[in-house]
Amino acid sequence: MKITIIGAGNLATCLGKALKASRYEVVQVFSRTEQSAKVLATMLEAQPITHIEWVNDGADVYIFAVKDSVLPILVEELGKKYPKKIFLHTAGSMPLSIFPAVLAHCGVFYPLQTFSKTAEVDFREIPIFIEGRDEKAMQAMMEIGQSISDNVRTITSADRKYIHLAAVWSCNFVNHCYNRAAKVLAERNLPFDVLYPLIDETRRKVHHIHPQKAQTGPAVRYDENVIAMQKELMDTDEMGQELYELLSKDIHRFAEDHL
Amino acid sequence: MKITIIGAGNLATCLGKALKASRYEVVQVFSRTEQSAKVLATMLEAQPITHIEWVNDGADVYIFAVKDSVLPILVEELGKKYPKKIFLHTAGSMPLSIFPAVLAHCGVFYPLQTFSKTAEVDFREIPIFIEGRDEKAMQAMMEIGQSISDNVRTITSADRKYIHLAAVWSCNFVNHCYNRAAKVLAERNLPFDVLYPLIDETRRKVHHIHPQKAQTGPAVRYDENVIAMQKELMDTDEMGQELYELLSKDIHRFAEDHL
Repeated sequence: MKITIIGAGNLATCLGKALKASRYEVVQVFSRTEQSAKVLATMLEAQPITHIEWVNDGADVYIFAVKDSVLPILVEELGKKYPKKIFLHTAGSMPLSIFPAVLAHCGVFYPLQTFSKTAEVDFREIPIFIEGRDEKAMQAMMEIGQSISDNVRTITSADRKYIHLAAVWSCNFVNHCYNRAAKVLAERNLPFDVLYPLIDETRRKVHHIHPQKAQTGPAVRYDENVIAMQKELMDTDEMGQELYELLSKDIHRFAEDHL
Repeated sequence: MKITIIGAGNLATCLGKALKASRYEVVQVFSRTEQSAKVLATMLEAQPITHIEWVNDGADVYIFAVKDSVLPILVEELGKKYPKKIFLHTAGSMPLSIFPAVLAHCGVFYPLQTFSKTAEVDFREIPIFIEGRDEKAMQAMMEIGQSISDNVRTITSADRKYIHLAAVWSCNFVNHCYNRAAKVLAERNLPFDVLYPLIDETRRKVHHIHPQKAQTGPAVRYDENVIAMQKELMDTDEMGQELYELLSKDIHRFAEDHL
């Protein structure tokens, strides 16, 4: 199976590298940004293109790893041109129905991970959630998926939305809490790396203990003295205080619900 | 140096075990809850006691690992009785000044970690922040600290408050985001463990990349479609929606500040 990748961002880059490592031939890499297209295409020994009309019929599978906002436009345009090809998109929150009806062989191929261009990830451990319109799309996704990951699962569009929501909580929002901690320390010229053992242990725990049981700290027992004092430390940062209070209340509410 | 531990909770348990492993003799373990006192005292081959008046003068160092709310009462009571002993407390948010003036040798011994009675932690990696009233307390803390950890640092009460605030952000609030993710999945009968690779990678990244740069997902680019759709998925959970929105706004604001 030959593959063309539409997109050259974080996910496109990591996925492209994993595909190449599994000896797939990548034919073309599309990005509106010439530099991005060139960088990824060079890595994958593919042809870089910057106009969607330049996507040719040389691939069997077209994988879309682009922003949600442009995805419908791109699949519409290429779908009309190559209705017999296999079209896959990688967006957790986009349903299968985004593909126009003219496409018989299409599917969603959603790797559940946070990708950076520079961070090497071990794709074998990444769960890939697949949903296909027909058997041909399913088989292609199963083959591609299993060649790069040990964890390929079928899922409905409805369930996938919740997986994506859970991913936002456990990755983006978690990372923002790290960022908030970094800000607190930076303002006192304290180094962020003192938190590494704590950060590591916090995530290690939830591999064994449900996060409900793993909770510690002032919010779970709603220690008003500590909470008031800590809010005061952020007195120049209204949004920080608001978020601190809301998180503390929510933690306490969860704890009470589980008494 | 002989040690008596006031408290038998998570921190007291983990610290007691680390002290015993470093061959310190633990004389007494105090907890109002008989069962807790007995469990920890048995582990440490110490005497379990359930009344603060039963704390004797057999130790050189008295370590308080109790709730912030009872700490002042306990140090007051024992301080009057044994003013020549070394008194240490372990509370991140409590200043050194909590100790009555009569105590010449006192200090704060704050291990920056989240402790569970059951989770084994490697104390050697845990940063311990110390602050002493006099040289004798400092020396005792340095000796005890370095015998269980490779990362003992001096700190002021003022800075320690910020360390503790950063710990709440990077541990308690992070854990709550995990808990929120677990709730989302549980409501659809989806397993939490599909998130492990994502959770692991999210924390792994911040060892190398500042969390500001590591951020991904819909909030950082404020993708209103995805944000609205995800909020809708939590339509029976007002607090969840509110928190989701506030976190998304804060992420976006941070991203704009760094453009």
